Amino acid sequence: MKLFFGEINPEIKINEDEQQHILKVLRMKNGDEIYLTDGKGNTAKGNLIIEGKKVSLENIEILPFENKNSSGLHIAIAPTKSIDRIEFFLEKAIEMGVSEVSFLQTDHSERKNLNFERLQKQAIAASKQSLRFHFPILNDLQKLSEFLDKNDLDNCVVAHCNENFKRKTLSEISRENLSILIGPEGDFSEREIKLLQEKNIVAVSLGNRRLRTETAGIFVAAWNYFGEF
Amino acid sequence: MKLFFGEINPEIKINEDEQQHILKVLRMKNGDEIYLTDGKGNTAKGNLIIEGKKVSLENIEILPFENKNSSGLHIAIAPTKSIDRIEFFLEKAIEMGVSEVSFLQTDHSERKNLNFERLQKQAIAASKQSLRFHFPILNDLQKLSEFLDKNDLDNCVVAHCNENFKRKTLSEISRENLSILIGPEGDFSEREIKLLQEKNIVAVSLGNRRLRTETAGIFVAAWNYFGEF
Repeated sequence: MKLFFGEINPEIKINEDEQQHILKVLRMKNGDEIYLTDGKGNTAKGNLIIEGKKVSLENIEILPFENKNSSGLHIAIAPTKSIDRIEFFLEKAIEMGVSEVSFLQTDHSERKNLNFERLQKQAIAASKQSLRFHFPILNDLQKLSEFLDKNDLDNCVVAHCNENFKRKTLSEISRENLSILIGPEGDFSEREIKLLQEKNIVAVSLGNRRLRTETAGIFVAAWNYFGEF
Repeated sequence: MKLFFGEINPEIKINEDEQQHILKVLRMKNGDEIYLTDGKGNTAKGNLIIEGKKVSLENIEILPFENKNSSGLHIAIAPTKSIDRIEFFLEKAIEMGVSEVSFLQTDHSERKNLNFERLQKQAIAASKQSLRFHFPILNDLQKLSEFLDKNDLDNCVVAHCNENFKRKTLSEISRENLSILIGPEGDFSEREIKLLQEKNIVAVSLGNRRLRTETAGIFVAAWNYFGEF
């Protein structure tokens, strides 16, 4: 099954970059069958028509709307100094079903900028590779306070390593529509932890091992995926 | 806490590469406190003595033997075509406590060789970073049949994606001293799956999502770590 990104409603159109990929990288042929998704749960199946540099579809069949491959998990994470690590986190979290990822600017963040467009492209690639018809929502770098203002904090927790504060374990919290905040290499500052406490955001520990930032994010995505079993 | 690799018994000696790292990269000073582990559970604490290019320790305190940070999990995995992915898997699996990693040569493996020495160095770096006093055992690339001959298969399972064969879910198997086999990008061949069946190795499914090889490995390490909670 080959899955590509494009528009389904109101008209069916393969994304321009994907058309080039089909022609130049995959060298696919007239009549080859592909699946096309808009990343919002709408998916179609059809056969390629190649006319010069244009690629379209015929024999189109619209598939039933798909709402199952998004887990409800929202991970808000401070990007690591090395961008490779955050890219790898993003790919793995998407494969394991994360629904939304926000990038946080925190007191101890070493990274102050992000190539958000590149991350969006990688998110689409990872979504396609793992055959997700629902692509995750990505939110560009924002201050912690902005994140707190903009999001529903009903089931929002923070994973930090500061033993001076009481923390629950992952097994004590609900996976349902969970948002989880993960700090930078130097952890959240005490100021930030207190701010989160004031907002009644529960603190959790990710166990006794020392995990890097991106590993903490991947671990949470894996733990959440295991809840689907 | 800064952790380095070296010998503890019969004499305390900082590894040569680590001595250079202390001097040239970290530019540490006489008297700085470090921890030294042999990666086998023996650990000491002391202060640096720097004499020219030689680094040794004084005021040495031997710490109690540590046997807790190895989980018993053995992951046998077919290396991915892109070496970055397998290196990333290794680092994440070590952070989450894997005890042993074997690299498998399988029917559908695209990668026929491995820079094992490089992987060993990375394993030491990841072990130190995650403050493990027990480093994992690494086994170089070997044929599946060799792996089966050499290892205790008492609690050994295989994760494959072939729906023609009956598979259990992860929640039906025991984490205790588990060995798990993870196939290459093209999965284990039917020949291999039948060979594993003959050895009474239970097949498991890693759920309904399509995970890359290295993601499957990371997911299993995360699932096993969650068992420690």
